[in-house]
Amino acid sequence: MRSLAFGVDMTYCVAISLSDGLVLTSDSRTNAGIDQVSTYSKMFRYETMPDRSIVIMSAGNLATTQCVIEQVQRDIREGHDENINSFKYMSDIADYLGDVLSSRIRRYSEKEQSGFSPEASLLFAGQIQGQRSQAFMIYPQGNHITTSDHTPYLQIGECKYGKPVLDRFLTRQTSLIDAATCALISMDSTMKSNAGVGPPIEVLMYKNDSYSLSNLHQFEAENPYLLEIRNQWGIKLNEAFDAMPRIPN
Amino acid sequence: MRSLAFGVDMTYCVAISLSDGLVLTSDSRTNAGIDQVSTYSKMFRYETMPDRSIVIMSAGNLATTQCVIEQVQRDIREGHDENINSFKYMSDIADYLGDVLSSRIRRYSEKEQSGFSPEASLLFAGQIQGQRSQAFMIYPQGNHITTSDHTPYLQIGECKYGKPVLDRFLTRQTSLIDAATCALISMDSTMKSNAGVGPPIEVLMYKNDSYSLSNLHQFEAENPYLLEIRNQWGIKLNEAFDAMPRIPN
Repeated sequence: MRSLAFGVDMTYCVAISLSDGLVLTSDSRTNAGIDQVSTYSKMFRYETMPDRSIVIMSAGNLATTQCVIEQVQRDIREGHDENINSFKYMSDIADYLGDVLSSRIRRYSEKEQSGFSPEASLLFAGQIQGQRSQAFMIYPQGNHITTSDHTPYLQIGECKYGKPVLDRFLTRQTSLIDAATCALISMDSTMKSNAGVGPPIEVLMYKNDSYSLSNLHQFEAENPYLLEIRNQWGIKLNEAFDAMPRIPN
Repeated sequence: MRSLAFGVDMTYCVAISLSDGLVLTSDSRTNAGIDQVSTYSKMFRYETMPDRSIVIMSAGNLATTQCVIEQVQRDIREGHDENINSFKYMSDIADYLGDVLSSRIRRYSEKEQSGFSPEASLLFAGQIQGQRSQAFMIYPQGNHITTSDHTPYLQIGECKYGKPVLDRFLTRQTSLIDAATCALISMDSTMKSNAGVGPPIEVLMYKNDSYSLSNLHQFEAENPYLLEIRNQWGIKLNEAFDAMPRIPN
């Protein structure tokens, strides 16, 4: 039983960490029950310091994630000792975000009612000058993991429908363009199987050492490229299926 | 925290209900923690009466599902008033299985320890003479649903990885052979993304009014057809991906 007072993101976000840079993708669907669906961007971009480019994506309880983002922004504005501009390393920012997230969840959990879940998780990615670009997944408990050569991507939210596509096509050496296309196909498979994930879809391509978060695409439901991908992928998969050897009778 | 004393099926089972008959697929992996993996068939076939063909598939807690199957067999053997041979309608058998399943779960739940879950669910499919073939999914609570023209399949266990493939290719009019091939691709996608689902894979094709459950395929890990499907599907998907229009830069 979800509390209608607190929107629950089904959401689907992916962060892909490549030799060439980062590809970040998120949907914008939030629902608190199937009859109360609204649209919130889940991707927050920070270019508040010239030496770093930082992106945060969120999934889970919307009240929690909005408070986390509010806190992050307040800490920057007020020049708090600990803010995403003050840390030297990406992993320090990941620790900081983990602290902000987990303390907010604990605060709500204390007042927990039956069935209400304030849980949320974050993807955090970017680059600080002098270091390579990185991506992290931050758990509700505040700890975090990063990518590896074998697993160049991280997901939060409704992960499973779109995972097989990522497993098949992504390696560290995949180009930014190919990975962005793959992420969109993964997003499309997820939208097809889960009504809680929906457009607009945001796709950000970050080229290493560019310190620019401007290569951002926003795809509305009727965007011609999104429709073409959906249509073409369906046709190609049908062709693939038709070409499969049939089970021996 | 799973109790090691009770195996937990990750399992993946699909029942597809078509104009021509039924296609039933299950894996055989059971695990209680990643270091304690074993093999149990999840598909139970009953040809104990000439007027009916009955199949039960199970996912969830192995102790629970083994007790359910034991009870079903005992009720047949002892000629209990209520057994799968005594009911006139498929939906009555579904009710009966729901009662057996939910009462067993309740019994274990009373002794519930932290983190231990005795939950399980069933797929039940077959045909009774004079009626069309049908498939049901039976929830741990004992209630059940069946298929529709828009949703000709039911899944239990690790459903999500393999669902996009089913959504794309299956309709009521799909042939038994095509549906069986589709179910194997769905199973293969699931095995690729989840180590808790694994061979041998069992695929049963039931032709309406045949009252025969003999068209059963068992695919071991190294089965040439299973390897060919895996290999060919991978190649075709890569071709499909290569042919996709790239995201505009």
